This record gives sequence, C-alpha cells and structure tokens, in this order.
Amino acid sequence: MANITKKVSWSSRADESGATAEGTPLLNGSEQPRPSRQLSRDGIFQVGRLSTVDLEEEMTSEEESLRGRPKEIPHNEKLLSLKFESLDYDNIENQLFLEEERRMSYMGFRCLEISRWVVCGLIGFLTGLIACFIDIAVEELAGIKYRVVKENIEKFTEVGGLSISLILWAVLNSAIVMMGAILVAFFEPIAAGSGIPQIKCYLNGVKIPRVVRLKTLVVKVCGVICSVVGGLAVGKEGPMIHSGAVVAAGVSQGRSTSLKRDFKIFEYFRRDTEKRDFVSAGAAAGVSAAFGAPVGGVLFSLEEGASFWNQMLTWRIFFASMISTFTLNFFLSIYDNKPGDLSNPGLINFGRFESDSVAYNLYEIPLFIAMGAFGGLLGALFNKLNYWLTIFRIRYVHRPCLQVMEAMLVAAVTAAVSFTMIYFSNDCQPLGAENKEKYPLQLFCADGEYNSMATIFFNTPEISVRSLFHTQAGTYNPLTLGLFTITYFFLACWTYGLAVSAGVFIPALLIGAAWGRLFGILLASITPNGSIWADPGKYALIGAAAQLGGVVRMTLSLTVIMVEATGNVTYGLPIMLVLMTAKIVGDYFVEGLYDIHIKLQSVPFLHWDAPATSHWLTAREVMSAPVTCLNRIEKVGTIVDILSNTSTNHNGFPVVMQGADSDEPSKLCGLILRSQLIVLLKHKVFSIHVSQDERECMMDLTEFMNATPYTVPLETSLPRVFKLFRALGLRHLVVADDVNRVVGLVTRKDLARYHLGRHGLEELQLAQT
Amino acid sequence: MANITKKVSWSSRADESGATAEGTPLLNGSEQPRPSRQLSRDGIFQVGRLSTVDLEEEMTSEEESLRGRPKEIPHNEKLLSLKFESLDYDNIENQLFLEEERRMSYMGFRCLEISRWVVCGLIGFLTGLIACFIDIAVEELAGIKYRVVKENIEKFTEVGGLSISLILWAVLNSAIVMMGAILVAFFEPIAAGSGIPQIKCYLNGVKIPRVVRLKTLVVKVCGVICSVVGGLAVGKEGPMIHSGAVVAAGVSQGRSTSLKRDFKIFEYFRRDTEKRDFVSAGAAAGVSAAFGAPVGGVLFSLEEGASFWNQMLTWRIFFASMISTFTLNFFLSIYDNKPGDLSNPGLINFGRFESDSVAYNLYEIPLFIAMGAFGGLLGALFNKLNYWLTIFRIRYVHRPCLQVMEAMLVAAVTAAVSFTMIYFSNDCQPLGAENKEKYPLQLFCADGEYNSMATIFFNTPEISVRSLFHTQAGTYNPLTLGLFTITYFFLACWTYGLAVSAGVFIPALLIGAAWGRLFGILLASITPNGSIWADPGKYALIGAAAQLGGVVRMTLSLTVIMVEATGNVTYGLPIMLVLMTAKIVGDYFVEGLYDIHIKLQSVPFLHWDAPATSHWLTAREVMSAPVTCLNRIEKVGTIVDILSNTSTNHNGFPVVMQGADSDEPSKLCGLILRSQLIVLLKHKVFSIHVSQDERECMMDLTEFMNATPYTVPLETSLPRVFKLFRALGLRHLVVADDVNRVVGLVTRKDLARYHLGRHGLEELQLAQT
Repeated sequence: MANITKKVSWSSRADESGATAEGTPLLNGSEQPRPSRQLSRDGIFQVGRLSTVDLEEEMTSEEESLRGRPKEIPHNEKLLSLKFESLDYDNIENQLFLEEERRMSYMGFRCLEISRWVVCGLIGFLTGLIACFIDIAVEELAGIKYRVVKENIEKFTEVGGLSISLILWAVLNSAIVMMGAILVAFFEPIAAGSGIPQIKCYLNGVKIPRVVRLKTLVVKVCGVICSVVGGLAVGKEGPMIHSGAVVAAGVSQGRSTSLKRDFKIFEYFRRDTEKRDFVSAGAAAGVSAAFGAPVGGVLFSLEEGASFWNQMLTWRIFFASMISTFTLNFFLSIYDNKPGDLSNPGLINFGRFESDSVAYNLYEIPLFIAMGAFGGLLGALFNKLNYWLTIFRIRYVHRPCLQVMEAMLVAAVTAAVSFTMIYFSNDCQPLGAENKEKYPLQLFCADGEYNSMATIFFNTPEISVRSLFHTQAGTYNPLTLGLFTITYFFLACWTYGLAVSAGVFIPALLIGAAWGRLFGILLASITPNGSIWADPGKYALIGAAAQLGGVVRMTLSLTVIMVEATGNVTYGLPIMLVLMTAKIVGDYFVEGLYDIHIKLQSVPFLHWDAPATSHWLTAREVMSAPVTCLNRIEKVGTIVDILSNTSTNHNGFPVVMQGADSDEPSKLCGLILRSQLIVLLKHKVFSIHVSQDERECMMDLTEFMNATPYTVPLETSLPRVFKLFRALGLRHLVVADDVNRVVGLVTRKDLARYHLGRHGLEELQLAQT
Repeated sequence: MANITKKVSWSSRADESGATAEGTPLLNGSEQPRPSRQLSRDGIFQVGRLSTVDLEEEMTSEEESLRGRPKEIPHNEKLLSLKFESLDYDNIENQLFLEEERRMSYMGFRCLEISRWVVCGLIGFLTGLIACFIDIAVEELAGIKYRVVKENIEKFTEVGGLSISLILWAVLNSAIVMMGAILVAFFEPIAAGSGIPQIKCYLNGVKIPRVVRLKTLVVKVCGVICSVVGGLAVGKEGPMIHSGAVVAAGVSQGRSTSLKRDFKIFEYFRRDTEKRDFVSAGAAAGVSAAFGAPVGGVLFSLEEGASFWNQMLTWRIFFASMISTFTLNFFLSIYDNKPGDLSNPGLINFGRFESDSVAYNLYEIPLFIAMGAFGGLLGALFNKLNYWLTIFRIRYVHRPCLQVMEAMLVAAVTAAVSFTMIYFSNDCQPLGAENKEKYPLQLFCADGEYNSMATIFFNTPEISVRSLFHTQAGTYNPLTLGLFTITYFFLACWTYGLAVSAGVFIPALLIGAAWGRLFGILLASITPNGSIWADPGKYALIGAAAQLGGVVRMTLSLTVIMVEATGNVTYGLPIMLVLMTAKIVGDYFVEGLYDIHIKLQSVPFLHWDAPATSHWLTAREVMSAPVTCLNRIEKVGTIVDILSNTSTNHNGFPVVMQGADSDEPSKLCGLILRSQLIVLLKHKVFSIHVSQDERECMMDLTEFMNATPYTVPLETSLPRVFKLFRALGLRHLVVADDVNRVVGLVTRKDLARYHLGRHGLEELQLAQT
C-alpha cells in the first residue's frame, strides 16, 4: 500500500490551493512551531468551503506510476494483486454531496441530462474521427509499402534475385513495427495489445492506472497504424475500443492529466460513477466504429461493464454508437469519392451476405455446430500457446529494448514466411474483372493471372477476410488455404502479447475464414450437389465466427456484431449456435484469451455471480477483520498514523461513534475514504506533515463521511453479499453485528478471491505484488 | 387487504396436505377440543419437513380473484392502488433455502443451468408455434371472409344494390368480433388489449392477477384471431408478447393453475426470481416472433424488465428469441411452400429495404426529424383521445355485455367507413404483374384496373403496411392516403381499449406509413429532382417509425426492432433520431399509451431512477411506520391476530429478538412474509381457525425467516433507497436505527408514490381500491 513517502510527493504539489510544503517538518517527533491558523478555538478544525469535486481529486501521475507499475510482475494465476484499487460506482452520499444535489433545481438536472447527451454525441463523433484517421492512414501507408514491394518483386521476378525483395520487405516491416514498438515499450506500456482486457477491468470497477489517459490514446493510435502497416498478423479493431474509452474519459472530465490542462467544464461528471458511464459509451462507440455495429457496441458495453441496467444510460450509449458509425461512414464515403453513401459501415465490414444467394438449410446446422466445436478446440490451443508465451515473456522479455527487438523479429519473420509461402505457391488465378485485387502479384504465373496466395498475404488482413468471404468458389485452392491457416495461426499467436498496439479480432477471423472456406470446398467436392449449396463464402463466415468465438469467448455481443457486420439477420441463429458451441468446447480446456491475460495480471475481477456452490460461505468468513475504524471526531495524529501505516491496506475506514455510556460499544455511523482523508488533511494543514500541535487537534468527520453506508449482518451468505456488492458497484461493504458494531469490511478482493476451480470452490491468495 | 374470511376459502382446500377443514371453529372464542398432535412437549410447534417450494405456494384462483378484481375500478391517475402486491426478485434466504442450496452439488447447479437452457428453448419453440398458428389462422379465415365479400361486391357492382354488400360485410365483421369480445369480456378480462402494459408491470415486479395463466393465453389467442379477422384496426403483434410471457410462465413452473395439473418438474424454478427471468425470455420470444427481431426482443425485455443485468440470463433470453424466430420462420416457410427459406422472419416484416435503391442523404436528416416531431404530435393526440375514451369506458362501459356491444359497434362502423371510403374513391390503378394484390376490388374502375383505396382497407393491416412501404411511386394518390390517415387514426384510437385482444403496433405503423408516404409524394412533387431521391416508400418507413414512437414512446428496443424488421442497419441512425424526436415532443404533452393505461390502473410502477429532485427526502419520510413486528418465538394467537387484522397491510413482517436484559430494546433479526406465515400455520394446525389451546402455543420462526434482510439507516436519501430497492428487486426494505431497532419498512408503494409532476416533486395518494 502507498506509504507516507509517496503521500509526500503527492501532497507537496504547489499547484493545489496555493500552499507550499516547504519547510514542513517530518512526521514523527519534530516540533517546529507553525502558525495554527487552521485551528478554531475549540481545537476542532474548521473546514473551508469544500465541494464533492474537491474530495474526488484524481491522483497525480507520479503517485499512480509508483503504485501502478509493479516492479516484480506477477505471473501466477492463483494470486490476486492488492495493488489494484477499485472504483466507486456508488455515490458517496456525504453531507457535501447531498447539499450539492439539493441545491440543484429541476432545471439543473435537465441541463445535466442534456450535457450528458452532448458529451455522448461528442464521444461518438471523435471516436468516429479517430477510426477514420486510422483507416485512412493505414490504407495510404500500406498502399505505399505494397506498391514499393510489388514493383521490386516484379523487377526481380524477371531478372532473378528475389531474395533482395525478401530483404526489402522484411526490413521495411521491421522498421515500421520498430517505431510502433518503441512508442509502446518506452512511452506507454499500457497501450500494448488490444486494450480490451484493460477496458474490461475498468468497466468491472478496477482502477487500471493510466488506462484512459490522452498519452495512452496517442501511443495507441500511432502504434496500431505501425503494427498494421508493418504487416503483423494483427487488426486495428480492438484498439478502437480502447481509443473510444479514452476519448470518453477525456471529453467527459473536461481536463487532461497528460496535457496538465483543466477546461473547467463538466465538473459534475468528475466522479467515478459518471466517468464509468461515459467510458462505457466510449467503448461502445469504439466497437461501433470498428465493426459498423452500433447495437453490438451497446451490448458489448453492457456485457462487459453494466452492473445496474439503466435505460437512459443505455440509450445514450446507443446514441454515441450511432454517431460514431455515422461519422466514420460519412468521412470514409467522402474519402472513397462516394459522398453520402452510408452503406458500408465500420472499419471492417464483411460485405453484405444476401440471403437469396447464400441461404442455409436446416440440415447444415449440425455441420455448423461441428465447425463451432472445431473452432473451440483451435481457439483453446491458441489460448494455451499464448498463455505459455505470455508467461515466458513476463519472465524473460520484460525489458523495453528486448520487447522492441522481439517485435522487430516477429515482423521480419512474418515477412519472410509470407514471402516463402507466396514464392512456393503455384495457385494461379485469372485476373478477371470481378476479382479487383488491389495489389495482384503475378510472380511466376502466366500473363493475365495472379498468385492467389499473395492475395491473402499481400494485403491488409481486413481485405483478405472480405476476399475469403465473398470471392466465388475456386478463387483459392485447398492447399493454399490449408497452408495459410497453419502459418497464420502460429504467427498470430506469436504476435498477440507483443509490445505493440494490436487487436486479435481480425487475425482470428482470418484464420477461421481460411479453414472455414477450406471446409466448404471439401464439402462441395465430397457431397452430391455440394457445389450448389456448399458456398465456400458461407462456410468461411461460419469458420470465422467459430475461430473468433473459440479465442475470445464472447457471446451475445459477438453474435450481434457478426450479424450487423454481415448485414443479414437470418444468419443470427447459426452464428449464435456456433459461438455457443465454441465457447462450451473452449471453456472445457482453457479460459478466453482476455480472461487469461486478466488473470495473469492478478486483477481482482468480479464475475457476474458468486461461484455456484458458495452458499456455505458467509460474510463472517469472507470479510477482512479486524477493521481500522475512526471516531467521528478524531485526533489528527491518529488519522495521520493510520494513513501512514502500511498494514491498513484498505481505502475506506468505517467511522464509529461512542455511545453515551462509556461502556456501551461504539456504533457504526459512517464510512470515509482514504483519498477523502488525505484531501481533508491537505486542506487543513497544507501537508501531511503535521506538527505535534496539530497532531493533538481534533477533526470532525461528520460532514465528509458517507453517513449511510450499506451494511450486512455477519450471517449473510456469500451469494447475497456478492449480489449486493456487484449490483450496486460498491467498493466497501461494512459487516455489522446485531447492535450495529463494526466487525468487518468486505472489499472487491475479498469477493474475487473465491472462484470455481476443477476441484470445487478454490480460494486465491492475496499478494502485495 | 385479504381478510380472514378469504383465508378460510383458501385454507379449506382439501387437495393440500390431505387435511380437511370441516368443523373447524371460528376464529374468536370458540373452544372446541381438538387433538393437539402438532404440539410438542414444550409447547413449541415442531415443524415437519418443509421445503422452500412449500413456502412459496401460489395462491389459488379463488383468492386471487377476490383480491385482484376490484369492484370499483379506480380512474384517477393521482392514486396508487394498495391492491397490487409485489414480486420478490430477491431470494428469501431462510435456513430452509440455504440448506437446500447447500445440499446441491456443483453438478446439481450444472444440471439446473442446463434445464434453464432447455426451458428457454422450449419457450422459444412454443411461442414460435403459437405465432405460426395465429398467422395461419388469420390468413385462412381472413381469406375466406375477403373472398366472400369480394364475390358479393362484384356481383352487386353490376346489378346495383351495393348496400347489401355493405350489410354483409358489417354483419360478418360484427359477428366475428362478437365472438372474440365475449371470450374476453366474460371469461378473462385480463386478456383484453395488447397485454404489453400488464407484462411491463409484471416484469417491473408487480403481481398482476391471472396475467400468466393458461386460460389467459387461450382467450388471448382466440381473441386476437377474431379481432384481426373481424377487420378491426388492430394488429396481432402486441398479443404475441403477452402470449410468449404466458408460455414462459407455464413451461417453467411445470404446472398449470387453469388445468389444475402439477407435472412435478422444474420445482426449483417455482420462485418469483426464476419465474420472472423466464417470463422475460417469453416476452422477448414474443417480440422476436412478432417482428422477426431477436435482438430487439432481448432489448425489449431488458428495457422493460431488467433491474440487475445478468450475462447468462441475457444470453438465455437471446436463445429463446432466436429459437422463436427460427421456429416461426421454418413452419411458415413450409406453409408458403418454400420449405427452408428463412429469409422472411416475423409475423410482420417490412420487406427488405435495399440500401442501394433506397439510400438517404445527409440533407434528408432534418426532414426526418421534422417528421419525428409531427409523429410525436399525432401520437400525443392519439394518446390524449384514448385517455379520455378510457376514462369514459371505466365510468360507463364496465359491464361485460356493454363491452361486447361496443366492440360489435366498432366492428360495424369500421366496415361501414371502409366501404364508404372505397365506394367514393376514384383512385384506379392498373392491375399490373408486379402489384400482386391479394384481393383486388375492381368496383367502378375500368377492366384491368383495381381500386387503390381498397388495397389498404380490404386487407389485413400487415399487408397494407408492406404495400405502403414497397409499392412503387404512384400506386396511391395523395387524396387516398390523406383520407385513409384521418379515418384510420380515429378508428384505431376508438379500437384500442375495447374488450378484445389486440395490439396497437400495426395500426400506428399503418397510420404513420400512410402520412409518411403522403409526405414523400408531396416532397417529390414540390422539390426539383424530388422524384429521384424522395422515394415514397422510404418516407412511409420514417413516418411509420415516427407515429409508432409518438404513441408508445419506446426507444432503444423499438429502434432495433425497426432496424431488424427492415433488415437494413443503415437506417438505424435516422430511425433513432425520429424516435427520439417523437418521444421528446410527445412527452411534452402526455405520456406514452402504455404508461397512461398503467397509471389509470393505479399500479405502483417503479421507474428507473428516483425523481431527480428527491435528494431532500430520506427513508424517515418515505417509510411506513410503525411496523408490526413479530417475536422470534411468537404466540400462535398473536400471529393469527396479526394476519387477520386488515390494517396491517404489509406482506412482510420484521422479526425481532428481545435482548438479554428486559429493558434492552428488541433487535431486528429477520423478515418473514405473510404467505410464509400462512403456510406455516396451515402445516401445523391444518387451518387458520385455531382453538384457544393452540392460540397459546409458541411458534419458532427462526428457521423460516430471512435472517439477513437488507436494512438502511433512517437518514438514507430517497435516491439511495430507491437504487437499492430497484437494483436488487426487493419487496420489503427494513429501516433500522443505530442500535438495529426496527423503525420502519419501505415497500414498493412507498417509493412509487413520489413522482415528478409539472410543479416539481408530487406525492400520489394510496387508496384501498
């Protein structure tokens, strides 16, 4: 837990309240005289005008970085880290808060509501713009790269010496990826990967340091452009979700820690509750921009984040999603010289599957389910391999320069493998009018033909996916698809977890589309009439869903995303069945990719329900006890001591009141947060270093504590505690006995500790990692 | 509140526990000797093996009918009825419950989970089948009717004397509608209307008597067929939602009160929590079948019902929806002789809007918004007229025979008006190959032409809607559309609220489509190039959305339903903007149609949040006090007296425990429900009529009470109480002071009382209506 030296660095900031901390005495013992102008006559600190916003200040980056970057990274999934703090999704109803709310008129609430809508619209618009920027940047830069390499290859195909082309390609890729990796590894490690696990944690209520900072956004956007242009087996869709979330946090708070600017707007929204709501909207807008799936975006946010369903909130999230898709669409239509044509939404869209041409029959459903099972198996293999790889990385590749080198190596290998595959492929296809390949490579094919293997390797993955879905039967031969599946599987698995910004959605879709199409081709050849009904594009779609479902194990939102991206609702049922099968089969072996990474970070993640067999446990066993309590009127010295004592590792302290009789037990009367106490001390004594005089003063906490904390009796069962905690998004839950004495405190970590393992209920260990 | 005489009829049933109530003494005073075999030696009742299912018995129909059919129907929207009970969405964790849960192994929970999925699949399947049955029945019967009338009209067009055709048509309609109205008015009044307000209330947690009975379903299905075939201005979609809900309740409980059969399956699901979850799934399956909108169905259920978002539950709801659409689709495709063609989902589908042919441009958005505003206005007018009509009906048309006569009158008038409109219309259109009208009426048109006005009137409304959306420009002339809009508006408004099963979705869509198309035609004629971009079908769609939004004021789910029904995601943004505008404009004047009807029934409906300006109120002002409490070991006589005292109008009683000192205040130690007490008494004394001997006996409530009820302190603000209550789906919330003494009880009615009126916070009155 943060000890007092960290607090010093935090409280000595000069930009707060004009006070300086120079010359303040050290904590213990020094008795330098100091003007006690904050002391009132009765020795109780009088508190100046404070607002709830003051009490909810954000920590500065220094302290967060001290807290959030553990030196020794845990790599044991049986541990829970105590480093992660929770977010409050429950308003802290102290007197200040209530006064503020009560001062507000009905019109005030209406204005707030309108500004929420405006903020959501802005979030959608900006997220759409960012998606648009990423898309255009990738398209242009990748275009340049592919043209250069293509010309080179064409030159050397005739004169021989294609190894020079290979080297050119590999060097180009490595150089581009290096830029992205340096940005991520040295400037903002949290921007690595897709960002989806981090956003999941944030929406779940875990405070992940620096995850919604502007700096993270900049690194993420530049990083993802480098990764995709650098030819890695990655997609740009996952990072969009993270980007949307950052945009949302930034816009809604009206200030930026990275820029050190405070625009003094939307100050009402500076509470965990509101911020989390907006971040949900941002994540949804991100999904919506990525896949052209506004409804899918809403469901993603709900699936990952919601605890209490709120109609107006959901409606606002939907608005942000819609605006985001629309913005992206509109600007891309201008870029594509078809202004106003809004029919191709999203960064990736699967192209329209017309139900007339690509219908499915009832008897194909078992085939689809079998594909789902296969996708689940392959996905589990992918996750297991990536799990081992990640553990290896945590142990041996944690230095930034090593990370950059690994990323460059992967880029070079990807280029080399692609080149080799193309080189040895003899799958030549006629260059027809309908196959409008963007960068067709002729290589050793006859004139008027192109190398089919090059179509999937020598393109951004998004274009390859669409090509696998929609090109007519016969465009790819089975050998090409088989080889591609195998190589891309391992490349993608190696790539995920590198110190680059990159998503796993598209690689998974691409792998699945490849083996799905292969399956369709085989089916067409071995069954009578197969060539009529077994459209390879249809099976590519099902395969893509199966593989993606097997890797990420999302269910409802993924179904809707896929349905929206195909623009055909009749595929809903098969896609749902496939995703369900993939999830059931995959879960049997190993968890989903995001959950693996969350576990490896030892995040105290709360699932939807308490483990099924946990009715045996009650609050008595679950809670932490004894609890450090504060008196309602407490000595400053005691507060300082408690705050600086590293063994009281809670962020909230029950406040108790002595009864009239001295032998009467003291009763619970409120709850106060560590952060609030620090602000209070700072506002009064200008520093956490207090003199002996000040130590003896009393501080009245009545006005600042939450006077109505939720409590449960000792005998409450774990599922009941869990439900209360989760439904209300609590951070601390006080356990009281039958005369209202504090006997324990339940926090997120106490609940996240219990999970269902192979041998029934298991308890994770807590570690100060 | 139910008084003791009602309890007699309930407890004297012979089919329960084999005991008979003959010869039992009256409550007060009679001291007939009676074998006290239930008394143990220490005078405390020993309780036999009871399970939680025993404690959660349903009330019999007699008692419910006594409770649920108020003799004097309230018609003041400033009242809240005390007649309605709440559902428990929070498990009552008494010892029995915990023991049962603890006995269950991990495998047991897995089996439960699997049976939940099976039940949801079954719900979807049966709902789909019912939808299919309704659709085919309507199509066949309406076909017969239209053919008869058409032949008659054709015969008399030549020879003159069309008034005979008019009479034939009117009599046919009246007769068919009479059957439906008799069923509804005499057998099951709760089956009237669309059922959506009732299902909204049920999902909100209000117990509406007989709403999910099998008898209700049968009446609903037959009633809706009669209404639609009878030519009323109604749709069959709303009733599908109610039907799905009934199916869900029936299947999941494994017994039927109407049939008096108990299949002894799914006994675990016989709790309010589980039942409500399944009813959500059923409602979603109903929406899904009605509109071919599985995602829309899920969102409808969430929007109306969810309090705590649960991922697995949502996923199961989605499964039920999918199965339902799929089943309907599959069987209809067989009926249509195109087996396996699953591309036309839903009872109504709007036909596919291809984005290439019917694209919209950015500059049309303001036009759409203006249409939304107009729809909101028209919708508000519709609601206001219907509100006055409903009040009139409550006052003067509450006798069943009057209700039947009114329904017949409306049917006859509808036929007469339609006939007149067709008769005087001179909108003749060529009978082309592409206009495949099902029952084209030639009337006074030239040969090879047909009367266009007849197309909209002389068809089921579903077909008319599709025709307005998709027929090419010029099929309808403006005068036809204008006249149709006006007449149909008043007909539909008069029809909603009749004692027939019928929905308002389709009439609203039809009205909107008509004026929308009219708007499109006018636009095309007054703007340059208007005929190119102002496709009347597109404006018909927007108009339909605006009108429906203006009437029902649904938002998120309606957008998704419309998008799914059009099969085109690019229309998402305009439809959302239109629905938002319609809601904002409409809400300015009057509430949504469903909310009006809920208010007129004085249902204690809980909205999503506490009123915005209610931070002033605390639990102290909101709660009911004083509260009748029971001791942990309580005299049977006291319990009987409390239960039979009509002034204790709560259904839950806090259980308190005397401290060791006699002067120590008694502490809260649990909560027990009225229904549980009654079951306990019955199991012990076989009747609520107890002898004086038995009155003196003590009963230990420890095992049966919920030992860990949620409590809040006196000072908790209303929004905080509200959030706790709503998020956890509570029925009773105990207010305790700082030494854990019971000081009050908050119930649904206490919270529903406060609402935001024109002049700030208003408080509704509670009435024993």
